[in-house]
Amino acid sequence: MKIIHCSDFHLGKKVNEFSMIEDQRYIIKQILDIIDEEQADAIILAGDIYDKPVPPIEAVEIFDDFLYAMAQRNLPTFIISGNHDSAERISFGSRLIAQRGIYLAPTYQGHMEAVTLEDEHGPIHFYMLPFIKPAHARRFFPDDDIISYTQGLHATIEASEINPDERNILIAHQFVTGATTSDSERISVGGSDNVDAWVFDGFDYVALGPFTKPNG
Amino acid sequence: MKIIHCSDFHLGKKVNEFSMIEDQRYIIKQILDIIDEEQADAIILAGDIYDKPVPPIEAVEIFDDFLYAMAQRNLPTFIISGNHDSAERISFGSRLIAQRGIYLAPTYQGHMEAVTLEDEHGPIHFYMLPFIKPAHARRFFPDDDIISYTQGLHATIEASEINPDERNILIAHQFVTGATTSDSERISVGGSDNVDAWVFDGFDYVALGPFTKPNG
Repeated sequence: MKIIHCSDFHLGKKVNEFSMIEDQRYIIKQILDIIDEEQADAIILAGDIYDKPVPPIEAVEIFDDFLYAMAQRNLPTFIISGNHDSAERISFGSRLIAQRGIYLAPTYQGHMEAVTLEDEHGPIHFYMLPFIKPAHARRFFPDDDIISYTQGLHATIEASEINPDERNILIAHQFVTGATTSDSERISVGGSDNVDAWVFDGFDYVALGPFTKPNG
Repeated sequence: MKIIHCSDFHLGKKVNEFSMIEDQRYIIKQILDIIDEEQADAIILAGDIYDKPVPPIEAVEIFDDFLYAMAQRNLPTFIISGNHDSAERISFGSRLIAQRGIYLAPTYQGHMEAVTLEDEHGPIHFYMLPFIKPAHARRFFPDDDIISYTQGLHATIEASEINPDERNILIAHQFVTGATTSDSERISVGGSDNVDAWVFDGFDYVALGPFTKPNG
């Protein structure tokens, strides 16, 4: 199965009050071209679809067009919210749209339900985890004394009953230890809101946002 | 065909800085009960779903739950934006959700496409017109010298190729002459932004918002 993994569109971003929307429209068009050329089997958008919780209208329209383009191609598309998005706004209509193969992560409920695709090697389970902070996890695990991001993710993954004998993909938007972050994410560099990579051990592939690079 | 026609939920409204959201949650629950008791065949929401173009999260969640409840009941549901809503935000995902029988009016394009249902008497065409001002119509009819709301609606209806030999329903959110408006809509009372009722002559039923009462 060929999966194209994108992240951090940040649609609606302004730089020095200057809207990037026309550049972003152009880039999304190019991503569509790549998706078609590569004949992908599934698409992942790992968070920060928008640059702000309440994006401008033009950003909403670009994303709406993108989702419609994926549905027209019958391309299963997995989308989670990032730390820049509103999880509730990203999840709007998710239960109605899922039938079209567009999977918008529901708001965080303490565990994840898989969406399962099949290829010639059997099932592949996609787990979608919107960006969460320790406080989100504490609501669902009041006895676990969750302080760190790592603990929050660990508890959530443990609660999700993942079958290690099959292929599992996690889609998450977290700052993972062992990577630096871009300027716009610098609030998290080296902070305690980093996630230790070991929590992802049960997965065959972890589709992360934001885009990061190895330390060093 | 039994149709339940609602309008002006104004979800997320605050009165003197006090949120009405719990009352609104209760009222929507009651509307759901009525829909079930009456065994309606279709639902119309004629605008002003939200009180503001960018509604609070709780309002988005209530509306999301309402749409999902309609889809679970296989109840065709027609929704347009009003003067309080953002037409673009209301239309998000409309092309993906329509398959589930949830029809969110697309943004205004100068004419309307019908969604057609059938009952024992034949087809019924539902036309959805989001709230528009004369300036919206002028973009699509540059030669028509459209100044008034009546002219804007007339041009739009004329462009929509309505078959008078079949049953046609218009869903619109406009201030119609011959009706007064509530305090919160007073900006439109008696103004030139009223619509003359004759423009609706071609329709068998006009499902209007906002709720109005006869003059006098």
